[in-house]
Amino acid sequence: MTLDIEQANQTAVQRMTSARPMLTGVALARDVIPGLREGLLLHAGPPIEWERMSGPLRGAVIGAVLLEGWAEDEASASRLVERGEITFEPCHHHGAVGPMAGVTSPSMAVYVVENSTHGNRAFSNLNEGYGKVLRYGAYAPEVLDKLRWMNTEMAVLLADALDTSDGLDLKALLAEALHMGDEGHNRNKAGSLLYLKLLAPAIARVAKDRVAEEKVLAFLGDNALSVLNPVMAACKAMADAAHGVEGSTLVTAMARNGTDFGIRVSGLGDQWFTELAETPDGLYFSGFSADDANPDIGDSTITETAGIGAFAMAAAPAIVSFVSGTPQDALNATLEMYEITTAEHPSFTIPSLDFRGTPVGIDIRQVVELGLTPRVNTGIAHKEAGIGQVGAGLVRPPIAIFEQALVAFADRYNFS
Amino acid sequence: MTLDIEQANQTAVQRMTSARPMLTGVALARDVIPGLREGLLLHAGPPIEWERMSGPLRGAVIGAVLLEGWAEDEASASRLVERGEITFEPCHHHGAVGPMAGVTSPSMAVYVVENSTHGNRAFSNLNEGYGKVLRYGAYAPEVLDKLRWMNTEMAVLLADALDTSDGLDLKALLAEALHMGDEGHNRNKAGSLLYLKLLAPAIARVAKDRVAEEKVLAFLGDNALSVLNPVMAACKAMADAAHGVEGSTLVTAMARNGTDFGIRVSGLGDQWFTELAETPDGLYFSGFSADDANPDIGDSTITETAGIGAFAMAAAPAIVSFVSGTPQDALNATLEMYEITTAEHPSFTIPSLDFRGTPVGIDIRQVVELGLTPRVNTGIAHKEAGIGQVGAGLVRPPIAIFEQALVAFADRYNFS
Repeated sequence: MTLDIEQANQTAVQRMTSARPMLTGVALARDVIPGLREGLLLHAGPPIEWERMSGPLRGAVIGAVLLEGWAEDEASASRLVERGEITFEPCHHHGAVGPMAGVTSPSMAVYVVENSTHGNRAFSNLNEGYGKVLRYGAYAPEVLDKLRWMNTEMAVLLADALDTSDGLDLKALLAEALHMGDEGHNRNKAGSLLYLKLLAPAIARVAKDRVAEEKVLAFLGDNALSVLNPVMAACKAMADAAHGVEGSTLVTAMARNGTDFGIRVSGLGDQWFTELAETPDGLYFSGFSADDANPDIGDSTITETAGIGAFAMAAAPAIVSFVSGTPQDALNATLEMYEITTAEHPSFTIPSLDFRGTPVGIDIRQVVELGLTPRVNTGIAHKEAGIGQVGAGLVRPPIAIFEQALVAFADRYNFS
Repeated sequence: MTLDIEQANQTAVQRMTSARPMLTGVALARDVIPGLREGLLLHAGPPIEWERMSGPLRGAVIGAVLLEGWAEDEASASRLVERGEITFEPCHHHGAVGPMAGVTSPSMAVYVVENSTHGNRAFSNLNEGYGKVLRYGAYAPEVLDKLRWMNTEMAVLLADALDTSDGLDLKALLAEALHMGDEGHNRNKAGSLLYLKLLAPAIARVAKDRVAEEKVLAFLGDNALSVLNPVMAACKAMADAAHGVEGSTLVTAMARNGTDFGIRVSGLGDQWFTELAETPDGLYFSGFSADDANPDIGDSTITETAGIGAFAMAAAPAIVSFVSGTPQDALNATLEMYEITTAEHPSFTIPSLDFRGTPVGIDIRQVVELGLTPRVNTGIAHKEAGIGQVGAGLVRPPIAIFEQALVAFADRYNFS
């Protein structure tokens, strides 16, 4: 029997698009993420050791070590890491994803997303909002104080609120947000408000303290990225459902650790194909320039992997004031991605394209054949630890990783 | 000195677009709406007497008489009206606007909107959500029960919440909503969520009863028209700021009472120009057809008067699944309206048109010269009292009212 790649890809993309990610809970990472143990930190992107980590990832590691109480100050945290007493593994190895540095430690609260179609689960930490935040490598005392508040007061309220529900349908939320000018990655304004709308009555129901309740409602509502992390976990749950289909050339993970950009392919098991990450092109906040930019970082490319983000940019013309370009560029971005994908999403549609489904299911064969890499929308981190976000923009993975993957595919499936 | 119409229109449209409507409070209509007295009901559109009222307006009148306790049942309410014991005046004569039937009675709670630029105020009743509602002419006991709940529990919570704020900036809210797929008239999904986001923390702060709080947060969040009424009052405040400019041919009110479509013109004082209203073309809910439709009704055309609604349809491609047509039609609707308007709105912009300002300031001269009437998005009411909404669609005012107005203008300003 010959290998039917087309059929395998249809199976994979059908699994991806039929997955139904439900946000069912908030819990401590150590209690729900498989294999997350004391002394282990999860991070964005493919595997990397301390020596090769970029500034923002190092900063987030220092912050997480301090948050966990594994060290008292920055210097002793660095020594601890340098003595090799902290283990690092990708979020992706544990069913998790995290934006930017993506550092997730055992005592952090995480979202639990369940794919009710196929039964797999995915996780993501909670979004910290703007300014100095761990995910951009900041670890000042106020950064850790905010994380402590999120881990205790906010997470408990979210967990209790979600416990009173049957789970929030993140697929329906995303479908609606794409009709409201979001693309689900850099622009989650509408999605975050839909999220607030779904949670607010339940929060009112379970809140024991009026001040805490007001603070959480304001924090969720004022942070236009509130829903990014649940959305990323939803995309991880959808992409994982498509992983491991024998003979499929579809990409099931794209992720960056701030140094390398890596992908995984459905029919190629858990192998990563990596290459040095590019630095995004974009718009910089006042006082910063491209000289300050760290190379591309974060697991948030799971959104593009699942057919949203830059792939749905035609739905979000207003985003160009944040990431650069014109509304026509945004339209073209989506149109271009149909060239390298296998299907049009049956649930995620774009009104301005006559409700056409978003391009979904990146085929490494098409990427290599056309020399056309996936588009990615992204935040831009300062290259030094402790500073934070300096802009937002557009980037692509290096084509070499798709070429590597295609060679490995030929090898694995014995093509001559 | 000759009359400089262009200059007058620039003055008028500049006043309209520089107005800054702030939602400052919720109060009982009798306490804030000038001239609203016992035995008087306000209604949408130009003046009309009971004999000429359509089904949905009659139904809303009956409901308001019952709500006020001026009669015990439908039959006695009808008799009371037929004996001439109830006075009817347009909302517009009292600085107010109401969607569909627009019936506003003294004990109803209303939004108070203040134009902080020019100092004028405007009012609108509270949105009832979907299903059987007074604004579509329903007056069953559950309709009145919901209004009583809104007038007591919800209005008190909203009033207390707004009292803790410096007012909500409805102009900023609208500008943002237009970047999130709303057009501000038939589609207020994003605006209603922004409204919820702004209010939720304040509601948590002032709520005394957890059950009431949860119910109000759910009602505001689940009703994608929650913000329509404050938005209409905001548009009224903006349009009123442009009214009364000597020599201006700009339209400052468009309104329908279910029988007649009427307009007012900035330079023509308080005179209405009216003609029989058309019946909208659109999509009907299951079980209903064009045979069930009442002629065009409601003050919500104040949105188009102020440069949003159908004039901003290019911002809201997803709306076509509700009002009919294609996304290209939506784009064309906006483009066409530039032909009959004086300016592009400096604050309300459309991302997909490269952030061009919405067409604003309808000039009766251009309407008549081009034979091109304003576009209107609208809900469709059943023609009989008590039934409710049967669909949504598109409509235009009769051109005759613009011709009448132009003749009156020539008369008033002594053109030969």
